[in-house]
Amino acid sequence: MKKMDYQNVKGTQDYLPNAEVIRRKIRRTLEDVFIQYGCKPLETPILNYSELLASKYGGGAEILEEMYTLTDRGDRDLALRYDLTIPFAKVVTMNPTIRMPFKRYEIGKVFRDGPIKTGRFREFTQCDVDIVGVQSQIAEAELMIMALDAFRKLDLQVTIQYNNRKLLTGMLEVFETEADKISKVVLILDKLEKVGLEAVISELSELGLSSSTVKLIKQFLTDKNNTSYSYFEPFSEQNEQVKQGLKELKELEDYLETLGINKQCVFNPFLARGLEIYTGTIYEIFLSNNSIKSSIGSGGRYDNAIGGLLGTDENFSTVGISFGLDVIYTALNTSKENSIESSDVDFYVIPINTQKEALLVARYLRNQGYKVEYEMVNKKLGKALDKANKEKIRNVIIIGEDEVKNNRFKIKDMVSGEERMESFKY
Amino acid sequence: MKKMDYQNVKGTQDYLPNAEVIRRKIRRTLEDVFIQYGCKPLETPILNYSELLASKYGGGAEILEEMYTLTDRGDRDLALRYDLTIPFAKVVTMNPTIRMPFKRYEIGKVFRDGPIKTGRFREFTQCDVDIVGVQSQIAEAELMIMALDAFRKLDLQVTIQYNNRKLLTGMLEVFETEADKISKVVLILDKLEKVGLEAVISELSELGLSSSTVKLIKQFLTDKNNTSYSYFEPFSEQNEQVKQGLKELKELEDYLETLGINKQCVFNPFLARGLEIYTGTIYEIFLSNNSIKSSIGSGGRYDNAIGGLLGTDENFSTVGISFGLDVIYTALNTSKENSIESSDVDFYVIPINTQKEALLVARYLRNQGYKVEYEMVNKKLGKALDKANKEKIRNVIIIGEDEVKNNRFKIKDMVSGEERMESFKY
Repeated sequence: MKKMDYQNVKGTQDYLPNAEVIRRKIRRTLEDVFIQYGCKPLETPILNYSELLASKYGGGAEILEEMYTLTDRGDRDLALRYDLTIPFAKVVTMNPTIRMPFKRYEIGKVFRDGPIKTGRFREFTQCDVDIVGVQSQIAEAELMIMALDAFRKLDLQVTIQYNNRKLLTGMLEVFETEADKISKVVLILDKLEKVGLEAVISELSELGLSSSTVKLIKQFLTDKNNTSYSYFEPFSEQNEQVKQGLKELKELEDYLETLGINKQCVFNPFLARGLEIYTGTIYEIFLSNNSIKSSIGSGGRYDNAIGGLLGTDENFSTVGISFGLDVIYTALNTSKENSIESSDVDFYVIPINTQKEALLVARYLRNQGYKVEYEMVNKKLGKALDKANKEKIRNVIIIGEDEVKNNRFKIKDMVSGEERMESFKY
Repeated sequence: MKKMDYQNVKGTQDYLPNAEVIRRKIRRTLEDVFIQYGCKPLETPILNYSELLASKYGGGAEILEEMYTLTDRGDRDLALRYDLTIPFAKVVTMNPTIRMPFKRYEIGKVFRDGPIKTGRFREFTQCDVDIVGVQSQIAEAELMIMALDAFRKLDLQVTIQYNNRKLLTGMLEVFETEADKISKVVLILDKLEKVGLEAVISELSELGLSSSTVKLIKQFLTDKNNTSYSYFEPFSEQNEQVKQGLKELKELEDYLETLGINKQCVFNPFLARGLEIYTGTIYEIFLSNNSIKSSIGSGGRYDNAIGGLLGTDENFSTVGISFGLDVIYTALNTSKENSIESSDVDFYVIPINTQKEALLVARYLRNQGYKVEYEMVNKKLGKALDKANKEKIRNVIIIGEDEVKNNRFKIKDMVSGEERMESFKY
């Protein structure tokens, strides 16, 4: 027989138990926090009509290139979802009786046939919360404190950077950037942190901006006062977008101060976010210790997408936030405490020629609510204890014939080495 | 503007919050039980090489026709998984250092481009547990008591029917069924419950079995003693498969009696299960009240699949069980208690011109661990109370300016109508 050699599809991976236990913890922690903040669960299909996903209110040209497409047996043009936002918007458009504001979470797989880099996969899990129906910045504040709460429960120190798209594009208008180039400039500014000032400036020049515009942008990027709102006041006289952006930022900051989270939330006037759909507040969450450079969560306000998708003039104020399960896993896994975590299992029941009685002891302990591993293949005691050590199972119960006869069982604590005797009415 | 009309892809659906809350409960209950039984979590990709999924140790010809296929940008031939078994087998073959026995669970989406019937979808969630590395029937017993435990926690009364493939195919050999027709006969027998005796007999004749074989099968199907093991004893002298099957059944029954679950587990000598891969015990779980005719969980032993997939002669004894999330949801949803379930939300905080103070009260209650919905759009009190009633939220806290001034808040119980006053140091 020829021994087969299987591989995973490029950009995908199996999560083996050691990793998956941590991922489950992240998923549950996030879900529990979402529930605590009154978010309702939603589950949307992975399979979608490609026409829907290719809508201009979707992910934009870059993501569309990365869309997996297929046809079904009925010859329908389908695609795998690349995010959870468009499916959410679709649900809102398809269910006009949903009570507003509607605050939902969804945790699910998304797919992007893009370049593979460290920590970037083609099939990955997103954890999203979106709120539709709230115009006020209180929605942003709610999502930001919720995010901080979630990361506190995951023992990760984070900082949220925020900005406002109206402010940013307004400033670019003030600098006389041509209207059709503003989105591209925003995308270039998005890379400031990563590539540095000089690279950004040269990219801007290559884009064909006038030298005076480039000069003004450079001045803006390097002005020491640009993180203070007072810097923008004079421009807000000239430009309605700057004025509105500034107003929203101040409103948001007021809520952040009320909630006492203004120290963990930092205004960054160059934060840009890639997607075109954003219309107001945008934010990205970073590890405070910077051990991972990329953001571990992000989102913002996109007031036009749902209305646009629906093709009506109705207002659908919408704010969302998205957490990346994989990057949070990486963050947790690099912090030491988590790597030595002990097993989930409370008791490991090892029969020595007492399979049936041991089954009953396992049943008894499980009925008490304990997590119990039962040794099914009559491992020798040494091998079984070896397994307990390797899998960091804390308590081992060895059930020999004498133990059964006397109804007294030895429980061995694998960490302290201590042993105690117990009797069960199993 | 043209108003768009969106639809879901045929065979897929959105699960809106009312449904998803129940589905989440099912998923968590199953997962918690799996963990309690010492199962380890595994997560495998949805995208697979189509070559792997098309292996003859996979789902068989019928499922292959229903496989969604696609190519990625690198022109690889991919397919969406149609079950969680082949991905599990793949993980075992790819990770030779996994410690045996390996008991894993996976809850995830699978895809089948097949006919749509009531309760059958093209994209659906399976919840699987498989154990590799245990030859003894104790593995089957462990999965069966685990299943009963899970359904008890879901408040569903169930019965498990079981049989043994060796016994069934052995009997067909005794009746001189041609070897190459045995699988097809098994598939026909699988429909006995659904289509009745006459339909089965006529299908068997159409298959081209000899009239004496058909007659013997009919005799077997109608013999009143066929549910007793003693019926099979004489045949076990003639046929090695019957002998081995009977031995395994008795071994299993012994464990079921020890565990005290032999009343809920019933031997059914005609239970067949569709898939070809099964080699020993097979079982299906039914609602005891028969309100849903199809099984709500099923599985069995498939000792040859992993070795076959790997292309070695190594033994990989494997037993699995699979729970269908959608059918369990249907079962729970038709039982009355669940449909009047109250909201997850503990408190609904309604500000009356006190947005900031109410935010702080919400933060305070959430920090205490409560699930809190905060009213973000300044709904009028009547509308807010209406929402609380409709969403069955139990406790409402109305925060007006007087309440803030006196730091005394009225908590209204929407069910009893009672009101109480509380003060918080928020």
